[in-house]
Amino acid sequence: MYYHDKRLQYPVRCESPDPLFARMLQQAIGGVEGEIRVCMQYFFQAWGNRAPTPKYRDMLLHTATEEIGHIEMLATAVALNLDKAPASLQEEGAADGIVGAVMGGGSARHAIEGTLHKHILSTGLAAQPVDSDGVPFNMSHIYASGNVAADMYCNVAAESTGRVLATRLYNAAHDQGMKDMLHFMIARDTMHQEQWLAVIEELGAEAALPIPNSFPQAKESQDHNYDFFVTSVDGTYPEGRWTRGPSVDGKGEFTVFRNEPMGEEPVLGPARPDSSAQAEQIGEKPAV
Amino acid sequence: MYYHDKRLQYPVRCESPDPLFARMLQQAIGGVEGEIRVCMQYFFQAWGNRAPTPKYRDMLLHTATEEIGHIEMLATAVALNLDKAPASLQEEGAADGIVGAVMGGGSARHAIEGTLHKHILSTGLAAQPVDSDGVPFNMSHIYASGNVAADMYCNVAAESTGRVLATRLYNAAHDQGMKDMLHFMIARDTMHQEQWLAVIEELGAEAALPIPNSFPQAKESQDHNYDFFVTSVDGTYPEGRWTRGPSVDGKGEFTVFRNEPMGEEPVLGPARPDSSAQAEQIGEKPAV
Amino acid sequence: MYYHDKRLQYPVRCESPDPLFARMLQQAIGGVEGEIRVCMQYFFQAWGNRAPTPKYRDMLLHTATEEIGHIEMLATAVALNLDKAPASLQEEGAADGIVGAVMGGGSARHAIEGTLHKHILSTGLAAQPVDSDGVPFNMSHIYASGNVAADMYCNVAAESTGRVLATRLYNAAHDQGMKDMLHFMIARDTMHQEQWLAVIEELGAEAALPIPNSFPQAKESQDHNYDFFVTSVDGTYPEGRWTRGPSVDGKGEFTVFRNEPMGEEPVLGPARPDSSAQAEQIGEKPAV
Amino acid sequence: MYYHDKRLQYPVRCESPDPLFARMLQQAIGGVEGEIRVCMQYFFQAWGNRAPTPKYRDMLLHTATEEIGHIEMLATAVALNLDKAPASLQEEGAADGIVGAVMGGGSARHAIEGTLHKHILSTGLAAQPVDSDGVPFNMSHIYASGNVAADMYCNVAAESTGRVLATRLYNAAHDQGMKDMLHFMIARDTMHQEQWLAVIEELGAEAALPIPNSFPQAKESQDHNYDFFVTSVDGTYPEGRWTRGPSVDGKGEFTVFRNEPMGEEPVLGPARPDSSAQAEQIGEKPAV
Amino acid sequence: MYYHDKRLQYPVRCESPDPLFARMLQQAIGGVEGEIRVCMQYFFQAWGNRAPTPKYRDMLLHTATEEIGHIEMLATAVALNLDKAPASLQEEGAADGIVGAVMGGGSARHAIEGTLHKHILSTGLAAQPVDSDGVPFNMSHIYASGNVAADMYCNVAAESTGRVLATRLYNAAHDQGMKDMLHFMIARDTMHQEQWLAVIEELGAEAALPIPNSFPQAKESQDHNYDFFVTSVDGTYPEGRWTRGPSVDGKGEFTVFRNEPMGEEPVLGPARPDSSAQAEQIGEKPAV
Amino acid sequence: MYYHDKRLQYPVRCESPDPLFARMLQQAIGGVEGEIRVCMQYFFQAWGNRAPTPKYRDMLLHTATEEIGHIEMLATAVALNLDKAPASLQEEGAADGIVGAVMGGGSARHAIEGTLHKHILSTGLAAQPVDSDGVPFNMSHIYASGNVAADMYCNVAAESTGRVLATRLYNAAHDQGMKDMLHFMIARDTMHQEQWLAVIEELGAEAALPIPNSFPQAKESQDHNYDFFVTSVDGTYPEGRWTRGPSVDGKGEFTVFRNEPMGEEPVLGPARPDSSAQAEQIGEKPAV
Repeated sequence: MYYHDKRLQYPVRCESPDPLFARMLQQAIGGVEGEIRVCMQYFFQAWGNRAPTPKYRDMLLHTATEEIGHIEMLATAVALNLDKAPASLQEEGAADGIVGAVMGGGSARHAIEGTLHKHILSTGLAAQPVDSDGVPFNMSHIYASGNVAADMYCNVAAESTGRVLATRLYNAAHDQGMKDMLHFMIARDTMHQEQWLAVIEELGAEAALPIPNSFPQAKESQDHNYDFFVTSVDGTYPEGRWTRGPSVDGKGEFTVFRNEPMGEEPVLGPARPDSSAQAEQIGEKPAV
Repeated sequence: MYYHDKRLQYPVRCESPDPLFARMLQQAIGGVEGEIRVCMQYFFQAWGNRAPTPKYRDMLLHTATEEIGHIEMLATAVALNLDKAPASLQEEGAADGIVGAVMGGGSARHAIEGTLHKHILSTGLAAQPVDSDGVPFNMSHIYASGNVAADMYCNVAAESTGRVLATRLYNAAHDQGMKDMLHFMIARDTMHQEQWLAVIEELGAEAALPIPNSFPQAKESQDHNYDFFVTSVDGTYPEGRWTRGPSVDGKGEFTVFRNEPMGEEPVLGPARPDSSAQAEQIGEKPAV
Repeated sequence: MYYHDKRLQYPVRCESPDPLFARMLQQAIGGVEGEIRVCMQYFFQAWGNRAPTPKYRDMLLHTATEEIGHIEMLATAVALNLDKAPASLQEEGAADGIVGAVMGGGSARHAIEGTLHKHILSTGLAAQPVDSDGVPFNMSHIYASGNVAADMYCNVAAESTGRVLATRLYNAAHDQGMKDMLHFMIARDTMHQEQWLAVIEELGAEAALPIPNSFPQAKESQDHNYDFFVTSVDGTYPEGRWTRGPSVDGKGEFTVFRNEPMGEEPVLGPARPDSSAQAEQIGEKPAV
Repeated sequence: MYYHDKRLQYPVRCESPDPLFARMLQQAIGGVEGEIRVCMQYFFQAWGNRAPTPKYRDMLLHTATEEIGHIEMLATAVALNLDKAPASLQEEGAADGIVGAVMGGGSARHAIEGTLHKHILSTGLAAQPVDSDGVPFNMSHIYASGNVAADMYCNVAAESTGRVLATRLYNAAHDQGMKDMLHFMIARDTMHQEQWLAVIEELGAEAALPIPNSFPQAKESQDHNYDFFVTSVDGTYPEGRWTRGPSVDGKGEFTVFRNEPMGEEPVLGPARPDSSAQAEQIGEKPAV
Repeated sequence: MYYHDKRLQYPVRCESPDPLFARMLQQAIGGVEGEIRVCMQYFFQAWGNRAPTPKYRDMLLHTATEEIGHIEMLATAVALNLDKAPASLQEEGAADGIVGAVMGGGSARHAIEGTLHKHILSTGLAAQPVDSDGVPFNMSHIYASGNVAADMYCNVAAESTGRVLATRLYNAAHDQGMKDMLHFMIARDTMHQEQWLAVIEELGAEAALPIPNSFPQAKESQDHNYDFFVTSVDGTYPEGRWTRGPSVDGKGEFTVFRNEPMGEEPVLGPARPDSSAQAEQIGEKPAV
Repeated sequence: MYYHDKRLQYPVRCESPDPLFARMLQQAIGGVEGEIRVCMQYFFQAWGNRAPTPKYRDMLLHTATEEIGHIEMLATAVALNLDKAPASLQEEGAADGIVGAVMGGGSARHAIEGTLHKHILSTGLAAQPVDSDGVPFNMSHIYASGNVAADMYCNVAAESTGRVLATRLYNAAHDQGMKDMLHFMIARDTMHQEQWLAVIEELGAEAALPIPNSFPQAKESQDHNYDFFVTSVDGTYPEGRWTRGPSVDGKGEFTVFRNEPMGEEPVLGPARPDSSAQAEQIGEKPAV
């Protein structure tokens, strides 16, 4: 179960509210690279963890719980960046003051409206669980496969795209408070990348491959499990680590195979009577 | 651009059609661990690839193109497994014959109907781009971040959950033809895991970390970038590779930090007039 | 604006409630071939209609309004089919009586539960705006392009897949009341197919093509606008009405063209500095 | 920020694992009436709260944090109910033992497979953030309008449908452990209904209406703001508290109004040239 | 069944078309607070209504039918606001005339394009069933639980967020015609809030609680059904109507309880063989 | 199975990158009228085709394969249009140079940011499988009904809305390279419209109707299958090809019917005990 402290994990300050930056920050809340995703992903991996030891369940809970605080920080940052935005278009000074200065032009009001309408209309100037285009986060992005090694790679993937996003936001930020918040979050993304890679290392690296390593590899085709398949019509292909030498898992040798049909043309035959296909598909005359 | 051969990459045969297995195979077509996902993910990574060399674009195209053939094989397998299913409930022998034998019970017809209605009703007994619960695939699962290392980890994640799924389907399969098809696809998943890990190795492994490695790490907080944050109320935590020793990227030392609020309680203040908040939020009396 | 009569457009009766059939009927309510779709599609086409005459707006309103009544009939049919289903598993006779008779087997209760849980849990035995797999209808399926000919083909498509679905439901129905309701709805689908085709005829058939016919065809490539493109690696292709003879619009001659690259390999070049790509993509050394 | 204790808020025990009940419990996790919804809704309402006092933000945080623990309990309950389910179809005793006993019939295996395939295939027998039909939770269901009274009604609505669902699950439960868990959660739903109603009372009940009460009611039409509009063609209507007497907010008098068009037929006129409408819509001849 | 009159319920006029306002109005059509939602919600509640009297079914039909007319008015308003928008960028005067005047700046054309592309590209300047960010309405927002009291609170919630949205649109409107249309719709929202609250009053207010009132409250935990649970680490909490005094339903006494684990750490144990977990989770050596 | 050539089907060149046009092009990639849709639709129709001859399967494969190349061209076009866009806001010259020139104003930077944030943040300046509003493509739009005539109308509908979109993009394009690419794609849309209409002609036009033509028309109601139903309250209706004369399929005569209730008011009766309805719905007193 869970507890809270109403203070934030790390300070969130914003000197120069920028409503467009608020919109960008939404990607880090409700985007597929965002914090709701990692938070819920770690929780579901923890809650469903089956293993002889509760060690990974425990570890996942620590980090999932930390991530709630990251959503909270970002939601606060969005609200602060909207702070000086006009709550309505009639409000005095809507296109002036700080916002006007930031925008620097006569069409400021409309540019803001064009970007912000959803925040004005639906939330009263607060964060939403949506991405920077207003698309709601969809929980199908919570990857929890029941295989801990697969899950760890999902987590590395999430933290890698997450840190890429966070550094882009850092590059886009003008406000010192925002930069400070992000430089903390980027550091946490570094650790989280490391953390999941550390688990993979602990799981034995090569020995963990191919995932799942509980499936006898003898049951998979031995003919093509380390072949790079070439599908170009002219048979050319780019050479690389993947075309020769020992495989990464140390269990095979990379080779190159020019892809070609080993199967036949599939023929499903006529449609079934009573299947409401067209009569010609069934091989009948049209019904009367 | 693209070409096709109407034959299949690998034989797809099914001796004992099993409509319930058809439903399961749908997860490998339209599930988030499925083949539409990897196919489209590799294509979009290829088409958007920016690099001094077209090498990775090229490689991605080979494998993306191969994956179209995998969707095709699975779609064929679904159709074949539905082959002896009743196209309608009036059809003679609906609950008998092969299907009845497979199902082995009087309520066979209803069990089939309960599971298959969507396939009967919407496709005339063919595959759909949906998962095994009938949920349509959503293209937000195509991860293509513009950072090749992040994308490779996304690909390893996709092929890991994909191979976990394929082995579960193999374990669920009774038909020899299905097992043969899957033992080929599992082998290809092995290679694809290896292939993306080979790129990561080529990108320098440690040197690639933290992702993105083009962002000066000096800009991230140096205080907490290799700290495991403990969020348990009693301060206990599970020890592991992630709590001490050199970090995986060789650039830091894992330590443990007991999480506590470094920020303050965020106070957004009263709602704006004209924001259609409740009067009490604005600090006004109700309007008349 | 709109009015209602609390009676149904056509009688909906059900002698032998069948909870599994209720589930199937959902496809005709919230499936992409269903009645919510056509109802809302005709409304949005009407409301946005721009033309020198209000004629098509008017006609669309008549049929859109009729379709509300079809959703109503189907929703009623779902409720009636659930009528004797157990509201909970504790309820006396849950697996017996009519339901048991219909199901005819000891595992009846679980089969019903397996299929009906959502209806039991979420609606108290009523219809929902979801398809037969429980997937909610998504309004992106409302096609209204602003081009009346394109919209009419969308409508023919909707009524064709709709009538295919309705006939499959008819084939699946055992109850005389359900068959009667469906034989009425299938007749309406016939008329609606005809109706949209009649508009296309009124729009001039050949003269309406290619859609939109307001775009000067001289602006499109004259080299390939009536060519069937062959993409098979061996150049074989199926002959048909589409490979020779005058085109359907009477404006060209069908020919066959073997597809080949006319463009070059696209090279996007290195990633931009500050784009959070991997250093190698930018052509830099990893940052420190 | 947040803390956790790895123990559960309330005991979750399951004597007789029932995989079908696991599926039902999913509705309480990822259904629109479920716990992810209330948890995230309260969090986003708290984080975006604008008011002269942090009181409601505080209160919302307490309950949002409690709700994480409810998702955790349900996720644990799902895993326990799947505990004896076959992990694969080859596994010894798949259709026997406890599962077989629960199912009580020869087609047990297929009924389980039909219901459980997604859990077997995608999670390795754990909970997912999806509803009982496998539809992923979509964050658009997080209602946080920036108006505290509107939000409180959203919360009452969520806890009312939530308690309805929980009692249906209680009625469906056979296992004593499950009943015990649910009897605790139902009690919490009672309190949460009460809690949000208490806030509404504190906000002044009548004085809070109509929501938002910061919009001068003088600006709304005075002609129809307390009229029940009758849309039946024959003008009949059901009498009730809403057709006469003082309005609930004490600011008006309920009356009945027979709806009729006050506006005109909207005529949008011809389509714009260059808008790719059909030529007839523009009032032109087809282009050549 | 249903009828229509091609005139509008209330006049919709627009003197100064504003394409950005068109975009905002979309939120009231296809947003979760919008008119499609209430229309369809009331219809599905009516069609599935089970009660000894048809009274509530009747009433719901009146208002659902009225709401179709509201979608129609808003769709008309969107079209009128797009009326002077450029249908394409080549169209003469695209950035000039009324639009230019409204926008008042050199980058007008691009600002319009940036905001309007979807309306230009997909509809030929008409309304769509999407929100102001272009996200299609999803029918999972149709709440119809089978419990009339729960449904009434869902309706109050819908009309409260709906009126909040409508007043924000009113505040954003510049055009007198738009203000007039909205001042009518806001009045209808007032009545609809009142109407559902009147039903709740008719259902007995206190006697209706807790919802569902047909579930014997004796079956819920008596220990915590009127306790405010405190989850702050330091045990502090905000006092309010919800921490002491009689409960709103008059059946209990509010008290405060400091939340703490009553359950134990859940231990799911090792993964099942054949479940495609990682070998370490099963407690085996990696397969060969 | 499939092959690729790394060159494009047709040249894609862009002299004057326009980031806003990139956003518009997204509609042709991931919009419901776009290329992913037709590509996947033709593939699934091919893979599930049941007929006495593989002819239509073959033909569909040719065109589906061609369409992959169209997605590729558009994805390349998006990347090229983003080529000179700022990768971050700090990047030198972000608001200057080509972009500044195109935008022509001081608020250029913000207008770009407002429109492009998602492309900057999530892809590093590349195409995504989303529409021009950033909404991901949803595979429920892949229509494949198992009835070839219904599918052909779905294809005509797709290519009609697709060509409408492409001509709107052509009208919006300023760059000669973009116009050239589009004039090729528009020509292909022409052919694809023709191609599916040619199949319909081959299927016998009138003989194909009503779809499905395998369902004995004698089973549908003979009373209303060629009646235009009038739903206006005053009985007026627009005359047209659909109100009199022989039906399009030559099997009936169009007539007009004034719609009126043929059914009765549906009465579902009281809610079931144990269904968690409100006590009043069951006809009981509230439980204690």
